[in-house]
Amino acid sequence: MRRIRLKVAYDGTDYCGFQAQPEVSTIEGKLNLAISALTGEEISVIGASRTDSGVHALGNVAVFDTASAIPADRFMYALLPFLPEDIRIVSSDEVEADWHPRKNECIKTYRYTIYCGPVENPMLRRAAMFYKGRLDTEKMSEAAAYLIGEHDFTSFANPSSQVLISGGDAVRTIYSLDISEETDKAFAGSKICMTIKGSGFLYNMVRIIAGSLINVGRGHWEPEHIRTVLRAKDRRLAGPTAEARGLMLMDIDYIRLGTENTNEIHGSSGKTD
Amino acid sequence: MRRIRLKVAYDGTDYCGFQAQPEVSTIEGKLNLAISALTGEEISVIGASRTDSGVHALGNVAVFDTASAIPADRFMYALLPFLPEDIRIVSSDEVEADWHPRKNECIKTYRYTIYCGPVENPMLRRAAMFYKGRLDTEKMSEAAAYLIGEHDFTSFANPSSQVLISGGDAVRTIYSLDISEETDKAFAGSKICMTIKGSGFLYNMVRIIAGSLINVGRGHWEPEHIRTVLRAKDRRLAGPTAEARGLMLMDIDYIRLGTENTNEIHGSSGKTD
Repeated sequence: MRRIRLKVAYDGTDYCGFQAQPEVSTIEGKLNLAISALTGEEISVIGASRTDSGVHALGNVAVFDTASAIPADRFMYALLPFLPEDIRIVSSDEVEADWHPRKNECIKTYRYTIYCGPVENPMLRRAAMFYKGRLDTEKMSEAAAYLIGEHDFTSFANPSSQVLISGGDAVRTIYSLDISEETDKAFAGSKICMTIKGSGFLYNMVRIIAGSLINVGRGHWEPEHIRTVLRAKDRRLAGPTAEARGLMLMDIDYIRLGTENTNEIHGSSGKTD
Repeated sequence: MRRIRLKVAYDGTDYCGFQAQPEVSTIEGKLNLAISALTGEEISVIGASRTDSGVHALGNVAVFDTASAIPADRFMYALLPFLPEDIRIVSSDEVEADWHPRKNECIKTYRYTIYCGPVENPMLRRAAMFYKGRLDTEKMSEAAAYLIGEHDFTSFANPSSQVLISGGDAVRTIYSLDISEETDKAFAGSKICMTIKGSGFLYNMVRIIAGSLINVGRGHWEPEHIRTVLRAKDRRLAGPTAEARGLMLMDIDYIRLGTENTNEIHGSSGKTD
């Protein structure tokens, strides 16, 4: 048996999230079906990030064990005919038999996209939330600075989060939180991207941060208010959970690659991370 | 009666083109339904560009006549509840009663988008054609230069074009044809945009130019071959008609605006062009 790792991209619009559930369409469910159909084995993948319904990914990670003889780096192509057009494998490689995508230190990068303008751009409706009007990105950047570093992010987590319910640690590290704006001349609007890198994120954390920074951008809060919210450790003080469709898991960068062996053999697995 | 002009944006993926046809979903059909529902009149719009099935627009133009009292610049908002989410009105204004979107001199801007990489990016699958591999954009730009200016574009037109069948003039002017490339790090790929401005385009002309420049980009033809194709006035020598999903009508810039009156009254109609 070998353990194969996939870097998975998907348009999450038409799925009930990553995690397999009976009777609904999920990314994990489609991956299991596709890999089982290809290998003839009964496959259940282990995913790195169980993204919510409607959330997208360019770099989620999943592993599975197989006795198939297909070379590790060919799975990305071999799976193509078995996958729906909104799920693609970006790369595939072999990892150590005990390498687990949720039990290895990593840096996750998420991007939250907001389309601002008088009307929605229909080409962006799947990949961006729509905000009617303008947002002050300078103030949003100022507010974002209070979140960078190691903090207790209880205020920015869904209280139904397993971690919080079980009395777990809400301390996470945000390495960077950049806000960029690109003008869309045709629509007299603009596309705002919040790119956030961290050691890990609590349930709904990126979307609650997005909802809070939007409150700053539209002038409802001063940037300093974000510090007050952070210190309060109270979800009720933060902004709303921004819509799922604006969220994209960009990348998961594993610090221990778990590919030491395969790197020597194939020399190509570095691409995955 | 007033004549109202709409600037219309749509994701054309799920439509059988712009032009109304019985029993299928079209942009024109949806516009007619929405405006009729809003005004209570039986409305048939006149469109500027009858884009093909699967082709998108950010700036198509349509006009209609109405006795409704809704201010011209409010139609873009008033129509929102009556339109599907993949069609939006970017702006609306009033024009002279005899202003016709196909009978006024204009500059049309189209963009053709190609996603190049080892696998398709699922977030771009509606708005870009996929090319597996790399294209040489420098050679494509070199080839594009032969097409700029006033030429007979018979080689780059669908021979079933009404204009050609009726022995009409295939001479058109291309003002510019720019090729840009943006790297997509996550996918080890790139997004190539061909932006073309012209006095008008024959049926399938932009897509046949795209298919021909792809032949150059992948090394199948030398850039100079495009000049040979152009001179031959023979469709069989050009490249294939590139997929509809990569094509977007970006803008129609009318040289005679037809808004002289309303500009004085509202001072806001300049946005439309």
